[in-house]
Amino acid sequence: MEKAEIGLIGLGVMGSNLALNIAEKGHPVAVFNRTTSRTGEFFEAAGNLREMIVPCTTLQDLAASIRPPRAIIIMVAAGQAVDEQIAALRSVLSDGDIVIDAGNANFRDTIRRFSELKDSGLTFIGMGVSGGEEGARHGPSIMVGGPRDAYARVEKVLTDISAKYEGEPCAAWLGPDGAGHFVKTIHNGIEYADMQMIAEIYGVLRDGLGMQPKEIGAVFDEWNKGRLNSYLIEITGKVLAADDPQTGKPMVDMILDRAGQKGTGKWSAIEAQTLGVSATAIEAAVSARILSSLKDERLAAEKAYAISDLPKFSGDRQAILRDLELALFAGKIAAYAQGFAVMDAASKQFDWRLPMPTIAKIWRAGCIIRSQFLGTLAEAFQQSGTLPNLLMAPAFIDMMKEAHPSLRRILARAAEAGLPMPAMSSALAYFDSYRQGRGTSNLIQAQRDFFGAHGFERIDAKGAFHGPWGDSG
Amino acid sequence: MEKAEIGLIGLGVMGSNLALNIAEKGHPVAVFNRTTSRTGEFFEAAGNLREMIVPCTTLQDLAASIRPPRAIIIMVAAGQAVDEQIAALRSVLSDGDIVIDAGNANFRDTIRRFSELKDSGLTFIGMGVSGGEEGARHGPSIMVGGPRDAYARVEKVLTDISAKYEGEPCAAWLGPDGAGHFVKTIHNGIEYADMQMIAEIYGVLRDGLGMQPKEIGAVFDEWNKGRLNSYLIEITGKVLAADDPQTGKPMVDMILDRAGQKGTGKWSAIEAQTLGVSATAIEAAVSARILSSLKDERLAAEKAYAISDLPKFSGDRQAILRDLELALFAGKIAAYAQGFAVMDAASKQFDWRLPMPTIAKIWRAGCIIRSQFLGTLAEAFQQSGTLPNLLMAPAFIDMMKEAHPSLRRILARAAEAGLPMPAMSSALAYFDSYRQGRGTSNLIQAQRDFFGAHGFERIDAKGAFHGPWGDSG
Repeated sequence: MEKAEIGLIGLGVMGSNLALNIAEKGHPVAVFNRTTSRTGEFFEAAGNLREMIVPCTTLQDLAASIRPPRAIIIMVAAGQAVDEQIAALRSVLSDGDIVIDAGNANFRDTIRRFSELKDSGLTFIGMGVSGGEEGARHGPSIMVGGPRDAYARVEKVLTDISAKYEGEPCAAWLGPDGAGHFVKTIHNGIEYADMQMIAEIYGVLRDGLGMQPKEIGAVFDEWNKGRLNSYLIEITGKVLAADDPQTGKPMVDMILDRAGQKGTGKWSAIEAQTLGVSATAIEAAVSARILSSLKDERLAAEKAYAISDLPKFSGDRQAILRDLELALFAGKIAAYAQGFAVMDAASKQFDWRLPMPTIAKIWRAGCIIRSQFLGTLAEAFQQSGTLPNLLMAPAFIDMMKEAHPSLRRILARAAEAGLPMPAMSSALAYFDSYRQGRGTSNLIQAQRDFFGAHGFERIDAKGAFHGPWGDSG
Repeated sequence: MEKAEIGLIGLGVMGSNLALNIAEKGHPVAVFNRTTSRTGEFFEAAGNLREMIVPCTTLQDLAASIRPPRAIIIMVAAGQAVDEQIAALRSVLSDGDIVIDAGNANFRDTIRRFSELKDSGLTFIGMGVSGGEEGARHGPSIMVGGPRDAYARVEKVLTDISAKYEGEPCAAWLGPDGAGHFVKTIHNGIEYADMQMIAEIYGVLRDGLGMQPKEIGAVFDEWNKGRLNSYLIEITGKVLAADDPQTGKPMVDMILDRAGQKGTGKWSAIEAQTLGVSATAIEAAVSARILSSLKDERLAAEKAYAISDLPKFSGDRQAILRDLELALFAGKIAAYAQGFAVMDAASKQFDWRLPMPTIAKIWRAGCIIRSQFLGTLAEAFQQSGTLPNLLMAPAFIDMMKEAHPSLRRILARAAEAGLPMPAMSSALAYFDSYRQGRGTSNLIQAQRDFFGAHGFERIDAKGAFHGPWGDSG
């Protein structure tokens, strides 16, 4: 057999599926796993893809099996395992070889690894992969950060294994060093917001309108044919339709309302704060997962407050459903506006020159947040060139003008009815703050000058001024 | 003259006022400033307090003027200047001397400085000081972190210069290393939320009810006599009443609506995220300042959207004012619940054992967020011992039960009227999420299991399960 085109280390679910995907696209792939028996199992199960797979039991074997300059994907748990793997590889690789971390790394770790490997002769790539297990197997969205010429060595493999949107591969080089992992982090932050907003709408349907899971699922199925068309809406319809084999009851009703998280949502919120960009929808989504984990406290609080006299969410069901659809769409626009604003700020801060239209394009298929909406978003970025904010793209102004009244109605009724909508309400507050030419921070500046002599700007003159607060100031 | 009781470096506004405060309380204080002329000016202006002040032109002088073991307060710009000052002091101080950083340090820097000084023979204290210029001069709130025995050396001076609440000093040792600066950071985060919520209420009064600044100021004056009684409400009334000497118009109307920030609000949001605690009111307040800074974008967005057909905020003015007062109170409760939850998590994470009742007590006077409310809060913590959340203290359950319907009404009408209330709406979402025994994260867990096989918990069995999603999952 010819030498493998690429290597892959780490045959967990994601790594195995990526390797099978590579093999299936006709690229010989050499694979290695720390626990050698796993490598054998993987190879046995690979069926007729075996002819494209070179199972290796040592890193020396692995290195010897790949055509130079070697390219090796590492798909192990993010964190220390990646550093250990890189360290182990250094002795078997040669100058010009490329190590690709495809895990969910924190981009600050990725930047550190670039720095650590700078004089090693090895080249490093930080690569975000989205799409879950299925994506890894049949076509993920791939976000690459690193030296552009190193990307050229692996571009064919990566575009071949990536998802396709109307024939266009959902893989791209996005910028140097941490760019790929940063974009993946923000992708996940947006995913958190998307999922949380869907859950809030589900809450209105369940607790406000008293609908059953299958009815709610049918609503999402219907919405999936329209402007909300997306993978997350599609699977929401599916999970709501599923029955629990054990009890015969709707599956979602048997699932504990305690959400886990693996850190990327939190990272995206921290990076937004660090960059000084408003990302309240992502923050609200992370907060919601945190509060969900406090199940016992919530049960105690429900009992302690025993609030039962709030108005019901009644009215014309069709009108409410239409409002909910548009409200979710409006919330989604605001959340994406925030996410892209965070990437824009990072791009400037780290001098990455992130290609926003390309990011929107490679998210149109393969990844968890894939949607029709991202097509519209990619077009908006292509047509407008640089945008101060997604909310200022002509197409989005039109969409938001149509949708915001519904968001207002839903939030007003949910507030009265006691149904929590943290992410959706953050979206409206963001929109209303953003489109308010004269805000209320003049009062905050007056307060700050009063107690701390911080000074303020005037509307009618340049410079810093102080107020006539007298001795009390 | 006898040796000085304490030294102070950095005669900016805050440092000068602290030094005068120390002298006035009868403690001889040796002072030093890098620019020597400033030391002279300060001394000249000190009037009859000069007899308690020892102006020093060198660090050697300073050290020689203080009784051993020496205690020296550093009040210079946070960051590198602190490190440089500490380095410069090392050659003139002796084992057992105490260096006190009284600036707005990031507590992580404070922890680092503790570590760096560990084997130096010097003792370090990180001290948060709140109250602005006036507080520094006449009685701030003082939050001390460091070795408890080092605190004993300076306790008399610090309690003497601190604010008093019904005779009790608002200065306390809160825990080791970074505890004082951390608590000060969260104090500032809460201050951000307090100020933002006041600004949102001001926005309803100005833009919803069309009231003039003096009318609005009178409303705050009135509220200051009731449950909202606090320094921030008091000064809000004052700044709204002030006229601009240049134009004769209300001062607030001449101030640009672009709020500054010095970083502590952002730090508190980042630390809350890092600790995994929901602090959406603080995040919303930081976000509001960020959006306020985008003045040009906001003006462009207002024009691009040109939304003018939203319902007015009409109705019985007295009823609305009462709702606004209670809404602000409810929002405040949620924001403080979040702030104290962040401190509780940090206390566990860093093993600080922060004394929550003491923190509430030393915030009752001197600091910017001082209020009647903090008295109630201190009592709640004293009566309940450990609380999972402030929202579970009996007194707060009663207050929140009374106030939340008003918060709902205000938020519903503000959403419809297009008035942004980011912090207030985050507060309601927090409350409604916290008191919801059965939330909506079961759907999120179903989605996560569908696309990532993350597994979920069941309501009727222990363990991790997967859903019947079939091949599509």
